[in-house]
Amino acid sequence: MNDLAELTARMRTFTEERDWRRFHDLKSLTLALTGEVGEVAELVQWLPASAAEGDIDARLRERLGDELADVLLYLVRLADVVGVDLGAEATKKLATNESRFPVDGHRGVAPDRR
Amino acid sequence: MNDLAELTARMRTFTEERDWRRFHDLKSLTLALTGEVGEVAELVQWLPASAAEGDIDARLRERLGDELADVLLYLVRLADVVGVDLGAEATKKLATNESRFPVDGHRGVAPDRR
Amino acid sequence: MNDLAELTARMRTFTEERDWRRFHDLKSLTLALTGEVGEVAELVQWLPASAAEGDIDARLRERLGDELADVLLYLVRLADVVGVDLGAEATKKLATNESRFPVDGHRGVAPDRR
Amino acid sequence: MNDLAELTARMRTFTEERDWRRFHDLKSLTLALTGEVGEVAELVQWLPASAAEGDIDARLRERLGDELADVLLYLVRLADVVGVDLGAEATKKLATNESRFPVDGHRGVAPDRR
Repeated sequence: MNDLAELTARMRTFTEERDWRRFHDLKSLTLALTGEVGEVAELVQWLPASAAEGDIDARLRERLGDELADVLLYLVRLADVVGVDLGAEATKKLATNESRFPVDGHRGVAPDRR
Repeated sequence: MNDLAELTARMRTFTEERDWRRFHDLKSLTLALTGEVGEVAELVQWLPASAAEGDIDARLRERLGDELADVLLYLVRLADVVGVDLGAEATKKLATNESRFPVDGHRGVAPDRR
Repeated sequence: MNDLAELTARMRTFTEERDWRRFHDLKSLTLALTGEVGEVAELVQWLPASAAEGDIDARLRERLGDELADVLLYLVRLADVVGVDLGAEATKKLATNESRFPVDGHRGVAPDRR
Repeated sequence: MNDLAELTARMRTFTEERDWRRFHDLKSLTLALTGEVGEVAELVQWLPASAAEGDIDARLRERLGDELADVLLYLVRLADVVGVDLGAEATKKLATNESRFPVDGHRGVAPDRR
């Protein structure tokens, strides 16, 4: 299921069928999202510094896939509760980034040094 | 753009055009994801405890939409670098949750008390 | 051990004795910190909205104590690697906050609405 | 101020003087902690992979010191609200780690591979 709107609808049904909507306030869902991102962090924290696709074995990929899915499910749920169209927002942000970081002048330069 | 595969492809192109792939190792992207979730947390931290859709004014919704989009863009990028099909993983996880938490017996009970 | 300098010294010794300094770069330690904060989040995410001391049973308090200690240990370690005097910085920040939020004018008003 | 008990007491006074205790429930403080860790993550996310003390210039050290102080202040506050003695818990955890990871057998081996 690659469609965000469909995923959102299924997560909403899942929640309502269990009468879990009462637990899905903004703060609780943001904490749940934090918890799942924390699990991703724990999986990668001691990997070699420049770890990329080639350094990931099948077991780690499976675990990462599992945790990244959890992040997405809570993210989709949070956006729904907030009343935000996640796909539209991402499209808008991507367009903003494309004009904010024109290819000329940003090639090979770290995106943000703060 | 509601399609995760399309979003993934566009983020990959965005990255490659700027030669930013070198910055997109697993650890850096997970830190970027952490930073964006932190921004969501800052937006909701002092909201009333049970804040839901009705408590969000237009300005806050706009800012949340913006930050949630950032979370999604880094999430999609991280999944791509890991070599994970995010849509497939989310579908699988949702099915797992549906059988792990059958409607009967979980109605109105907090999903996880740990 | 309430003394931050002492705790920092013991964590440094612990790290050096195991030759773990090589793993303690900034990014890895920040990810470790993220992971531990994520564990705190998971412990509180489904608690009642206004949960305070009185709502925490002995088991949860024990688990929270354990996770908060992990956060502190990585925080102390990260500050040491960065070359920051954590106690001095906290004292400075507290003084800044005291003058930034004078008692008159901030009594009972949420510290930050962003 | 290196003493955690003293820092805890000052943060409690700071909170009570402003009548902010009502905002300092477990979930709000954990979100605040998440937000501050997110700011640390944003400061380090695009640093070179193996960034350590030597790679940090004065400006970055100052900003990191500021954010790490924020993490500590919320951590101390959260522990106080939970009713946990943070110094005692950290001492206990360090002792646990010392016996869990004996020097022999863990020298130079990443602490956790999960």
